[in-house]
Amino acid sequence: MQTIPLYQFLDELASAAPTPGGGGAAAIMGAMGAALISMVANLTIGKKGYELVEAEMKSQLAESEALRAQLTDMVADDVGAFNQLMTAYRMPKETDEQKAVRHEAVQAGLKQATRVPLNCAKTCAAVIRVAQRSAEHGNLNVISDAGAGVLALQAALRSAALNVYMNTPFIKDPEFVTSVLEELNALMTEYLPQTEAVYAKVRSRMG
Amino acid sequence: MQTIPLYQFLDELASAAPTPGGGGAAAIMGAMGAALISMVANLTIGKKGYELVEAEMKSQLAESEALRAQLTDMVADDVGAFNQLMTAYRMPKETDEQKAVRHEAVQAGLKQATRVPLNCAKTCAAVIRVAQRSAEHGNLNVISDAGAGVLALQAALRSAALNVYMNTPFIKDPEFVTSVLEELNALMTEYLPQTEAVYAKVRSRMG
Repeated sequence: MQTIPLYQFLDELASAAPTPGGGGAAAIMGAMGAALISMVANLTIGKKGYELVEAEMKSQLAESEALRAQLTDMVADDVGAFNQLMTAYRMPKETDEQKAVRHEAVQAGLKQATRVPLNCAKTCAAVIRVAQRSAEHGNLNVISDAGAGVLALQAALRSAALNVYMNTPFIKDPEFVTSVLEELNALMTEYLPQTEAVYAKVRSRMG
Repeated sequence: MQTIPLYQFLDELASAAPTPGGGGAAAIMGAMGAALISMVANLTIGKKGYELVEAEMKSQLAESEALRAQLTDMVADDVGAFNQLMTAYRMPKETDEQKAVRHEAVQAGLKQATRVPLNCAKTCAAVIRVAQRSAEHGNLNVISDAGAGVLALQAALRSAALNVYMNTPFIKDPEFVTSVLEELNALMTEYLPQTEAVYAKVRSRMG
């Protein structure tokens, strides 16, 4: 997926093929957010007037690049989870035994299709923490890029959450569902306001 | 730019090269939003239970695909505007005549670097109008993709606005600046609440 041309990724996203879809788009938006935070660090390191934040920017860059690699890989995880679920849905359901085996496979598929976007949401939250430092200390000439980055991360986090909410109603394991939703809601409660705080910081530094 | 592999676009976004940056990212996020709205239409057309909205979905698809093509092209427009501005900044400024010529070129470059993201914001707004109908009538099985689409469009619209706000303080033509900011603020006032309304519609249809 990562090696296809950009226009082809967009064409495949638009097509009737079910993947890539919202889950893959969330991962790529998160990766774009991380890339923009990396760009701000790259354009702050070595610049006159930013000597005092150079070490901090190098540490930010290492973090945002590691998180970007994870988010880019999640496009493939999303396709894998979708295919696993589709394979389960297509299993035979003639006999009671087949029905039972299929039910287990579908449930396992739904759980995986929930874990992948939850992981995407967690990784976006980690980039948002880096973005906060980027907006505070990054080069003023490219500070709007930190703003665009955090907006991409906000959209990615909320889109990943939608992909969790899409699957949880079908999962017959209340403990799993409760645990996933508690974790996701804690992320949303903490990090969505933080994205707006980072955006406000960017706007205030733009003068 | 469109023909480079997806991972390379992300690498270039993250790099110290100034383009692609937040402006190009805004255009690509807008294109991703349009692609997801197209996907919902593609996965609604011809599906059982959605016969009554088939004509509407075909019209949505034509609109979102045309707007997606425009947004994808804007990545190149953003690079072009940046290069024009950099060329102007690098012009000689030894004599008074050179200074005057350079000033005019810089001002023309700044105006172009403002028009491109304003156009991106306008195009995102047009896709948001389509997204509203998509969220209301699209296939319930893929309704979270309409949600991810409108979140991408929201981030794209706000990121494009940041790119306008970055340039306007340096433009010495108050009439141009007032006109651009009035148009942009009108778009933000109308369409940002609409993205939240579309998101709320998606959530309500997810049950």
